[in-house]
Amino acid sequence: MRLATRENGTPDGELLVISGDGARGIAAGERWPNLLAAIADWAAALPRLSTLAAAVEAGGAAIDPSTLRAPLPRSWQWLDGSAFATHGELMQIAFGTDPIDTVKPLMYQGLSARFYGPLEPVPFRQEADGIDFEGEFGVIVDAVPMGVAPEDALGHIKLIVQINDWSLRALAVPEMKTGFGWIEAKPACSMAPFAITPDVLGGHWCEGRVHLDLEISWNGKRFGNANGREMQFGFHHLVAHAAATRDLVAGTIIGSGTVANAGYREVGSSCISERRAIEIISTGQAATAFLSFGDRIRMEAVTPDGEAPFGAIDQVTVRRE
Amino acid sequence: MRLATRENGTPDGELLVISGDGARGIAAGERWPNLLAAIADWAAALPRLSTLAAAVEAGGAAIDPSTLRAPLPRSWQWLDGSAFATHGELMQIAFGTDPIDTVKPLMYQGLSARFYGPLEPVPFRQEADGIDFEGEFGVIVDAVPMGVAPEDALGHIKLIVQINDWSLRALAVPEMKTGFGWIEAKPACSMAPFAITPDVLGGHWCEGRVHLDLEISWNGKRFGNANGREMQFGFHHLVAHAAATRDLVAGTIIGSGTVANAGYREVGSSCISERRAIEIISTGQAATAFLSFGDRIRMEAVTPDGEAPFGAIDQVTVRRE
Repeated sequence: MRLATRENGTPDGELLVISGDGARGIAAGERWPNLLAAIADWAAALPRLSTLAAAVEAGGAAIDPSTLRAPLPRSWQWLDGSAFATHGELMQIAFGTDPIDTVKPLMYQGLSARFYGPLEPVPFRQEADGIDFEGEFGVIVDAVPMGVAPEDALGHIKLIVQINDWSLRALAVPEMKTGFGWIEAKPACSMAPFAITPDVLGGHWCEGRVHLDLEISWNGKRFGNANGREMQFGFHHLVAHAAATRDLVAGTIIGSGTVANAGYREVGSSCISERRAIEIISTGQAATAFLSFGDRIRMEAVTPDGEAPFGAIDQVTVRRE
Repeated sequence: MRLATRENGTPDGELLVISGDGARGIAAGERWPNLLAAIADWAAALPRLSTLAAAVEAGGAAIDPSTLRAPLPRSWQWLDGSAFATHGELMQIAFGTDPIDTVKPLMYQGLSARFYGPLEPVPFRQEADGIDFEGEFGVIVDAVPMGVAPEDALGHIKLIVQINDWSLRALAVPEMKTGFGWIEAKPACSMAPFAITPDVLGGHWCEGRVHLDLEISWNGKRFGNANGREMQFGFHHLVAHAAATRDLVAGTIIGSGTVANAGYREVGSSCISERRAIEIISTGQAATAFLSFGDRIRMEAVTPDGEAPFGAIDQVTVRRE
């Protein structure tokens, strides 16, 4: 099942059930008007949404992609991991920081009050902050009890999403060195239009990981197509870590961190900082600059058949006046 | 004006306008059924709430303190500062960490999906995690635009609250050393029952700081009564820092960090870790253990006249089975 959120003038938007080809939709209706309401009542909502998912294949109305917002335009909690070891290794080079000494998943709490839609221009105050993207996968859980085991956490993963975790690199290292995590360096993220149930991915959802290439282009030029399978911890481990000492509210979104592969020389990267680290490794110096206003970033996870189950993020950066 | 939230079976509770003596209340009514709705529409809600605030002094119904939840039982964003320099200095000793090198306010994003009510038992999985309290003040803002100046941020502070930021010290240092901030070490916080408009404090709200003693007792024994005036940054500076690269959603709560004074030998502390640091300074060794299950913590900011404008937090810790 594939879900989306349409602009309707409300903060949470209108929940749509979307056809397999991503072209048509049916509104979920009054009882679960938006995805945040549905995920909070998932056991009751799922049968109705599944019925609509069957109906939309035979009917539904064409949807206008420009009306689609993030599947969750806001939520109560966004906990972003950093589960790709290759990303961690390259970021140490990019940031000039020491290796992180932990056997647990890395995770910070980020801004959940707003997720930009897939086509929405993204505002920043100044290019000098080092505007960067981070292509990720994420999962949305129902209510998860404190202390859940990883094997039980898997069943709480109800939806999978694709995320661009916008980052401001010039602000990141000083904040990281405080130990407090990131406030300035992590503004709001963006989401691809479709939140999907794990079954949509078939065998590409395996051991709590999304085994798909995440194709990223920058101003129309290929930047990377790393695969989600190389997560050091599966999403069920990230959920269990997030819930170690807290109950997770339904609608909590857990991120994978930037998708990165050991074979980065072939597949490229999912953020500029990694490319800069690779340049440092190769030549001793970073050559690629961060984003300028007006730059366009497109991100689309694709199956071997060329399908894009999450749809695409396709956005430009703009100056916030 | 003094506001509270009464249990009514909904996630956000029922907004009440409370009398100056904290004893009586009037429901705000259907248009702004809860505080999260009111703060999102503050300019429209304020005149109506002010009318009710006048009415409640002449009438209203007695409120049962056991029915009061946190003023905001959940919100979209909780950004906790660490604005008391004395707290920072003592925590370095308690944690055995290096001084933090920054001229900006310290701040992390914490769990906002749940704030425990003032009398609610607070569940933890194990005492070995080092259960500690942190007595703080906080402010609730309306929508704040990205890049706001501190002098403009002051006007966005609509309500002031009193918070216990529960902390798990055994988990804190390893997380801090990752640079990612705290997930495991920072479970849900608690709030005192009344959110108040700044005017309630009169001259005790000064330069964006709450000039009140925060009286804390542990199992009935005085623990500390540090004053909120010694914040290195006022709340308006904390709000501006929080909004440096993000719009703040209405209902965002900004915390002061643990209230601490340079004269800690006289006024005591607002968390156990600080007392342990003071013991280390005095004797070379921490003597005070962290909390046990069943321990009771009471926190109450008081005026020189002995009034408690926020009411009191009075809670016991319990084991989560």
